Amino acid sequence: MKKIGVFTSGGDSPGMNAAIRAVVRTCAYHNIESYGIYEGYEGLINGEIRKIGARGVSNIIQRGGTILKSSRSEAFRTVEGRKKAFENIQKFGLDGIVAIGGDGTFTGAAIFNKEYNIPFVGIPGTIDNDLFGTDFTIGYDTAINTVVEAVDKIRDTATSHNRLFIVEVMGKDAGFIALRSGIAVGAEAILIPETRTYINQLIEKLEGNRNGRKTSMIVIVAEGDELGGAYEVAQKVKKQCPQYDSRVTVLGHIQRGGSPSAMDRVLASTMGNAAVDALLNGKNNIMIGVVNKEVAYTPFEKAIKHHDKLNMNLVNLAEILAS
Amino acid sequence: MKKIGVFTSGGDSPGMNAAIRAVVRTCAYHNIESYGIYEGYEGLINGEIRKIGARGVSNIIQRGGTILKSSRSEAFRTVEGRKKAFENIQKFGLDGIVAIGGDGTFTGAAIFNKEYNIPFVGIPGTIDNDLFGTDFTIGYDTAINTVVEAVDKIRDTATSHNRLFIVEVMGKDAGFIALRSGIAVGAEAILIPETRTYINQLIEKLEGNRNGRKTSMIVIVAEGDELGGAYEVAQKVKKQCPQYDSRVTVLGHIQRGGSPSAMDRVLASTMGNAAVDALLNGKNNIMIGVVNKEVAYTPFEKAIKHHDKLNMNLVNLAEILAS
Amino acid sequence: MKKIGVFTSGGDSPGMNAAIRAVVRTCAYHNIESYGIYEGYEGLINGEIRKIGARGVSNIIQRGGTILKSSRSEAFRTVEGRKKAFENIQKFGLDGIVAIGGDGTFTGAAIFNKEYNIPFVGIPGTIDNDLFGTDFTIGYDTAINTVVEAVDKIRDTATSHNRLFIVEVMGKDAGFIALRSGIAVGAEAILIPETRTYINQLIEKLEGNRNGRKTSMIVIVAEGDELGGAYEVAQKVKKQCPQYDSRVTVLGHIQRGGSPSAMDRVLASTMGNAAVDALLNGKNNIMIGVVNKEVAYTPFEKAIKHHDKLNMNLVNLAEILAS
Amino acid sequence: MKKIGVFTSGGDSPGMNAAIRAVVRTCAYHNIESYGIYEGYEGLINGEIRKIGARGVSNIIQRGGTILKSSRSEAFRTVEGRKKAFENIQKFGLDGIVAIGGDGTFTGAAIFNKEYNIPFVGIPGTIDNDLFGTDFTIGYDTAINTVVEAVDKIRDTATSHNRLFIVEVMGKDAGFIALRSGIAVGAEAILIPETRTYINQLIEKLEGNRNGRKTSMIVIVAEGDELGGAYEVAQKVKKQCPQYDSRVTVLGHIQRGGSPSAMDRVLASTMGNAAVDALLNGKNNIMIGVVNKEVAYTPFEKAIKHHDKLNMNLVNLAEILAS
Repeated sequence: MKKIGVFTSGGDSPGMNAAIRAVVRTCAYHNIESYGIYEGYEGLINGEIRKIGARGVSNIIQRGGTILKSSRSEAFRTVEGRKKAFENIQKFGLDGIVAIGGDGTFTGAAIFNKEYNIPFVGIPGTIDNDLFGTDFTIGYDTAINTVVEAVDKIRDTATSHNRLFIVEVMGKDAGFIALRSGIAVGAEAILIPETRTYINQLIEKLEGNRNGRKTSMIVIVAEGDELGGAYEVAQKVKKQCPQYDSRVTVLGHIQRGGSPSAMDRVLASTMGNAAVDALLNGKNNIMIGVVNKEVAYTPFEKAIKHHDKLNMNLVNLAEILAS
Repeated sequence: MKKIGVFTSGGDSPGMNAAIRAVVRTCAYHNIESYGIYEGYEGLINGEIRKIGARGVSNIIQRGGTILKSSRSEAFRTVEGRKKAFENIQKFGLDGIVAIGGDGTFTGAAIFNKEYNIPFVGIPGTIDNDLFGTDFTIGYDTAINTVVEAVDKIRDTATSHNRLFIVEVMGKDAGFIALRSGIAVGAEAILIPETRTYINQLIEKLEGNRNGRKTSMIVIVAEGDELGGAYEVAQKVKKQCPQYDSRVTVLGHIQRGGSPSAMDRVLASTMGNAAVDALLNGKNNIMIGVVNKEVAYTPFEKAIKHHDKLNMNLVNLAEILAS
Repeated sequence: MKKIGVFTSGGDSPGMNAAIRAVVRTCAYHNIESYGIYEGYEGLINGEIRKIGARGVSNIIQRGGTILKSSRSEAFRTVEGRKKAFENIQKFGLDGIVAIGGDGTFTGAAIFNKEYNIPFVGIPGTIDNDLFGTDFTIGYDTAINTVVEAVDKIRDTATSHNRLFIVEVMGKDAGFIALRSGIAVGAEAILIPETRTYINQLIEKLEGNRNGRKTSMIVIVAEGDELGGAYEVAQKVKKQCPQYDSRVTVLGHIQRGGSPSAMDRVLASTMGNAAVDALLNGKNNIMIGVVNKEVAYTPFEKAIKHHDKLNMNLVNLAEILAS
Repeated sequence: MKKIGVFTSGGDSPGMNAAIRAVVRTCAYHNIESYGIYEGYEGLINGEIRKIGARGVSNIIQRGGTILKSSRSEAFRTVEGRKKAFENIQKFGLDGIVAIGGDGTFTGAAIFNKEYNIPFVGIPGTIDNDLFGTDFTIGYDTAINTVVEAVDKIRDTATSHNRLFIVEVMGKDAGFIALRSGIAVGAEAILIPETRTYINQLIEKLEGNRNGRKTSMIVIVAEGDELGGAYEVAQKVKKQCPQYDSRVTVLGHIQRGGSPSAMDRVLASTMGNAAVDALLNGKNNIMIGVVNKEVAYTPFEKAIKHHDKLNMNLVNLAEILAS
């Protein structure tokens, strides 16, 4: 193994740069050449591949986004696209690839792996934490801190009566961000795709609140909640509890950026290092994870098909502490 | 002048606590008793008035929100409400009042002042910067920094092609926050109520951009823009430039909270101190301002009726630098 | 179990308030009365004990410091002091105590426990992460993020030639904060009490660096390093590598404050909840921990006597990535 | 005027990149070519000069440090050095130069200007705010916010008794940063070079404080205070008030980095734009300033020789509010 390529793919997540740095520096340590592949699978297909040395990743560990840029590639879903990618891998003499991304990234890698004999190792870089085989994905901790800092500011102003602050956070299929940030901000209600009954509880809380114990409430809603996003929830509340004045915040892409948290940087550094070691040890078609503080390896197919069920202890904790 | 009351009214703005502290500590310095009036005019009407000493405002200069709470009072708009307020002022023996808030607050103060002979001095505490007679209102600088920090995170991720990030900021009648934060983040377009032609320019930019010079764009839109908020703009863009993928962020009440910036704390400290001095010097019915680094006094009626026209130099600057 | 007391003791750590809130709210959930004991063991001895309800802990989850204040108590080290503490516990009818703090706190609790039959459960609230029986202590993650944010700012300016930025962080006996934050900021060297040889390596690096690969370097030094703190290291470097210009930063108590990170809040919420549950389940003389995502119980004596050895994998990782 | 060069020189200050961007973009707007000169006067002497286009300054407005790097040049103090600089200016065909820096930078420019007929316009980029001819220098507002955020964290923990937190901030000759940040954090004492009597007042305060009104105190000390820095003050306090436990923080270069505040970005954008306009209007040997919201021009010699005397109103305000 003399040349390793690395790319980032899918939605940005804070810590991707720290992972790239760790891959490149670990390669340098082992006297392996490292190559940056730009804009994910697109760069593999189009041959946008450039050598990066240890100095080339200086001063990036603290940056959000990704110096290699990212994209979602339609072309890589085609047989032709993957053929071109393979040809470029051969042209540049890459002996292994480190792919940093989420389930879309690893789905592509798994398919490619069946067709071509190129070692692929994945690093979970996504704020959604929706992959099996790792306690945390890179960017998840930062995204939650971003939500928490934003909602803290709202909380400052939340002393008016009968006011409802509804904050929409990311999470199309999973409530990980909503649940954890909701606990961290002490949200009065958390609406997530995994549970169905919260709107009633929310209305009940609002009704019960008429006695004035709480002056205002903060509701965190995952964009994928079955009720819809923040505006839809606001409309439903308006219908059933018109005495409440709802104010909406939609955080959007703020959650995908920002300087990574310390935890995400250490996680990304650990995983980037482990990914190169895994390639050196002949591993292929697996995603690096950290489970119970130890590096773990999970086949791509398994990493993307399952994801850890929501921690119901946290759901209960949220309920008890918001009471 | 032996007893001075202080309250906060209208929407929260960061730095209100610093102003309260300055009022109370300046009173203590002059051996004047200070009284906190809770929830703005409501507290004046309901007699929620409590003495505060110099220690009572320790450790609040850095806090967002207001320890005296705030509200918008319907009752104070009635003759009866104002009569009750006057009675409470007499009951507690207050010789002067410091009112911290925005145009609604000062409108009320001006009316009250015509009916009752109680010295009122105002401090401009609003993120909107829409008052005449001061270069900056308390909270404006913090709100802009809040917008800037949020949009910086979005910028991290803005390397994808043909993507439009539309960020809605506060400003129902005025584009102050949008314009200044737009310049600070290097927004590609800024949509504000004071100007009418930007949507065309926006589309032109998007069209002109097809040659790929810029990979993505950030648009700041004031909630009061004539096109509507972020979602309305996104829909218009979708119709006319379907090749662009729009992502929406609505910051909402995040902008009203947060620890005040250094500038807002110094401004609030200066104004709180000046407000007590003004009362001691027999001033009445005026708002404290800081204009060209000097304390200035503006009659309430004038402070609320006019506001500085938008700085067209900044509008031009934004255009030149975004090019 | 009808009445539970809670206090914070030792050095402040961010998240203590979140733990207090979780204790109080969990008590409320179980219809148990909760009592705040002020200034740690001092309050227990002096009877500074007051009932707190669920509303009394509103709006504190995001605050640094501790609403119950903290102290180090000399009196509790005496037989008389502990006797008074016991008498107050009886006077207020407390059936169990939750003690939030570090090794000093639990040492006291263990002694008290041998003398008096009052159930004590501990929560690890210290930035030092130096307790056995939990993966992380409350405040550790925040402290590291504080270091990281500070050093990132230094890194911005670190493009001058031959400059050495030496940053002293907390850690009298352990290099946990230094090591983890050092990895997170990409420090060129990390000096910690657990290792002895780094000064030579540092000089070597500086010497080797004369070829100009790196323009400046960041060194993180734990206050308890055998070479001394930042100033001592600066002097040693000056002697042996006079061509380097050293600049010193001493973070000090900044590391003990600040709004807790999301992770610390969730951890504190989990532990506060678990502490009350533990008391209800008849547990005594144990510290709550979270190990591999599960709540764990460790006798006080064991929690304070051992602490996890430094993770040598991280030491190696730091070396590889800084190269 | 067809080609303009721009460089940054002296100590880093946040907002330098925003100024560079404004210079380059304003040049682009006027169809002028802009050239980046690397590492200040060193780059001018060594010919490290490269063309930068409008896209070359994308995504830098938010970054601390300077993409052009900075240095202090010994060579430029020599006749030979300046001759080489002139030759390079001719070689690259630069018709004018924008110099971003502090008094050292402008001293050099003024000397050069007497020897060679090359238009120079300066932009005040320094955190020290010690230049005549502008209300604020670029970086000053950010540096103060950095101090404020750090000290706020200390304040969180400042509930212990008889504790003195001594925080050293930048300011060798001037107390601007110390005074303004001291007011913003509500420091109990502020020690600055411009005033001589504070140590006595400090001790008095500590003595007077024995009645326990304040539990702990925060002291901000400028590095150039006549008593010395934080450690020296701590030693003096220890001698005279041994009952106080002093804790020291030295912020150091943290204050020179970090993402610039909104105010610094707008200021830098305004000044960068005005600098190019000034060159186009035939101005030379002047520093751009913003005074009372208007762009102002001050000859280099005047900008560096005088600086605004400390605002004694602020000194008094600090005293009154800390009481």
